[in-house]
Amino acid sequence: MRLTTERRQAMSKPYGELKVGPRILLGPGPSDVDPKVLRALSAPTVGHLDPDFITIMNDTVELLRYVFQTENQLTLPMSGTGSAGMETVLVNLIEPGDRVLICVAGLFGQRMADIAGRCGAVVETVQVPWGRIIDAGEVRKALAKGSYKLVAIVQAETSTGILQPLDEVIDLAHKNGALIVVDAVTSIGGVELRVDKWGIDACYGGTQKCLSCPPGLAPVTFNGAARKAVASRKSKVQSWYLDLNMVQNYWGQERFYHHTAPVNMIYALREALRLVYEEGLEKRYARHRRHAGALYAGVTAMGLELAAQEGHRLPSLTTVAVPSGIDEARVRRDLLNGFGVEIGGGLGELKGKAWRVGLMGYSSSRRNVVLFLSALESVLKAQGFQAPTGAGAAAAEVFLAANPEG
Amino acid sequence: MRLTTERRQAMSKPYGELKVGPRILLGPGPSDVDPKVLRALSAPTVGHLDPDFITIMNDTVELLRYVFQTENQLTLPMSGTGSAGMETVLVNLIEPGDRVLICVAGLFGQRMADIAGRCGAVVETVQVPWGRIIDAGEVRKALAKGSYKLVAIVQAETSTGILQPLDEVIDLAHKNGALIVVDAVTSIGGVELRVDKWGIDACYGGTQKCLSCPPGLAPVTFNGAARKAVASRKSKVQSWYLDLNMVQNYWGQERFYHHTAPVNMIYALREALRLVYEEGLEKRYARHRRHAGALYAGVTAMGLELAAQEGHRLPSLTTVAVPSGIDEARVRRDLLNGFGVEIGGGLGELKGKAWRVGLMGYSSSRRNVVLFLSALESVLKAQGFQAPTGAGAAAAEVFLAANPEG
Repeated sequence: MRLTTERRQAMSKPYGELKVGPRILLGPGPSDVDPKVLRALSAPTVGHLDPDFITIMNDTVELLRYVFQTENQLTLPMSGTGSAGMETVLVNLIEPGDRVLICVAGLFGQRMADIAGRCGAVVETVQVPWGRIIDAGEVRKALAKGSYKLVAIVQAETSTGILQPLDEVIDLAHKNGALIVVDAVTSIGGVELRVDKWGIDACYGGTQKCLSCPPGLAPVTFNGAARKAVASRKSKVQSWYLDLNMVQNYWGQERFYHHTAPVNMIYALREALRLVYEEGLEKRYARHRRHAGALYAGVTAMGLELAAQEGHRLPSLTTVAVPSGIDEARVRRDLLNGFGVEIGGGLGELKGKAWRVGLMGYSSSRRNVVLFLSALESVLKAQGFQAPTGAGAAAAEVFLAANPEG
Repeated sequence: MRLTTERRQAMSKPYGELKVGPRILLGPGPSDVDPKVLRALSAPTVGHLDPDFITIMNDTVELLRYVFQTENQLTLPMSGTGSAGMETVLVNLIEPGDRVLICVAGLFGQRMADIAGRCGAVVETVQVPWGRIIDAGEVRKALAKGSYKLVAIVQAETSTGILQPLDEVIDLAHKNGALIVVDAVTSIGGVELRVDKWGIDACYGGTQKCLSCPPGLAPVTFNGAARKAVASRKSKVQSWYLDLNMVQNYWGQERFYHHTAPVNMIYALREALRLVYEEGLEKRYARHRRHAGALYAGVTAMGLELAAQEGHRLPSLTTVAVPSGIDEARVRRDLLNGFGVEIGGGLGELKGKAWRVGLMGYSSSRRNVVLFLSALESVLKAQGFQAPTGAGAAAAEVFLAANPEG
């Protein structure tokens, strides 16, 4: 009966034009999208085998190689959001019975372990408290137990705001004979990532974080060793949709039809990548570090504390500890309703304990740092929080003046 | 060396603004997208848990129930293209060892059998030559061999242009105790589809066909029996990304974060569905039938033959047999380069033997029928094909005059 009533209401409902925002996206993603990218997104749809579209696909792959800093031939955007990239990498590399080691320092490490299990892997994990980095010594100990098909680790943990050092872990994995898989969803395009130089075998990123493209695609890259592991599987990849043996023949010279690519999303990704290329990766990394530094200075000056381990904070995403006596959800609601500013709440071990503030891609700007700090001061004071007036924004401005653009 | 050179070229390449079209999409999908939908697509991105976005999600689900003609609570768009919808349905319903019967009358039936195999099912098939319908008698014979977990069938075979009758097959499946799964990728929103009335247990559609939304989403619907099969699984769904036990908690009242939804694609789908709702399904079905009729009249008057079985032709997609002596790929190239008109080539058993002409959603118009027939005449004559001048377009106009809008 309840559904029938709903249905009847729906049927007589006048559906109006779309109503959204206005918003400024300073959460864990999506980030704000440059109007140029929205314009590209809304170009007329063409066929997925149209010569014009094939040129766009080629540009997109070249530009993805640039942001991954790789010459890997197998580099392409999968037709799903970031988590589909994670599943793509694991489902293509893992065969039932393979031993894998997953490093878990937050929600996305947990998710990798869950997916690896669904692929039939024998999953072992290295775990640390949320908000800390994985210690290479722990990985060494775990790898001493035997040989592994792969080791997987998150470079930028969106749930904790940690930037994980990778060099030693990559080295240890390779000494074990394992492939190294890196989650770069929240780092790609905003935080240093060098797939070839660092020796990463397979890597996936997100589009809606530091690349500032709407969500819907998942760039992946596989080097020769990872590709060989896919090509020499004994069993079929358990997902048809994500089977790289087929997907790569659509994106490669063959142009074999596999599934209908999300054409307009690819337009947007190409434009978002073109803007990254125009800015240059080094400048872009520096911009993310600089605005994160201003944010740290601001929240500290307000008497707040950062939740992620010092020395390993992620420029693109900052976790701020919720002070005692403050209703964290109300703060987020007041920011959204009063200022149109979105930030994220904590997840898992940090639920209720931290806010997640993203300064990613197009959202990483002086204007947004100053607005956020001023707005945060206002909504915290409404809950009785004591902070020196204007201290946050002023400290951010001092930081920026002392650290001019390169 | 080759890659390094490519990379160097890429690095010094000036990437210009996006260049596409202009095109008129009369292939097997995507179809042309209404400018209103492109405008919705490019609205500013908001967060996937934003209250404004949740309203948009609710509207989208209500409108999807309308186009599926269902009151199924579990109705939502999956974050991938049509084939991800196929994989969603099979991967959630099938557990290793389950016996399934797949009806194969073209490429998409084959794909279902492939995916079911990857899910660990014991797959049996009923096969017919491409361009024919599946005979219910064959299904009866196959089902007599035992009991099955599910029977899967394609309503609208995009590879052959066949509209499959469903009533007897649905009845037979239920008598066997099997769930019935229907592929409605190329029928939803353009050809009669009544999920509840017909007793379909699980169904998936595409957005880039008769709904005229850009590709990137896959609407699915599950009734109570199908939902129960998912909820009572002994094993985890092998795909984390497509696991409805989790995805439905994001789309349902719980709003649990699962993956970041493709926000802008949902804007576009809501707008595309709103336009379907505004037109009304019955009028829309009639429009598709009417323009298909005009197309049949036109190509027949030109001396061409239709490739799909008479009496079972799909209004949204017409297969036209390639006359002997004609280079079929050149015809498609000439239509694209000379008129900006895209049609499709044959697939599988029809490769080189048929063209696939779609009149779907926004593309299903008098203007497009007349343009296509005139353009086809021109490019065929360039290859020496004999046809009475203007006969195709004239016959189409006669048909439309004799069959006015309802």
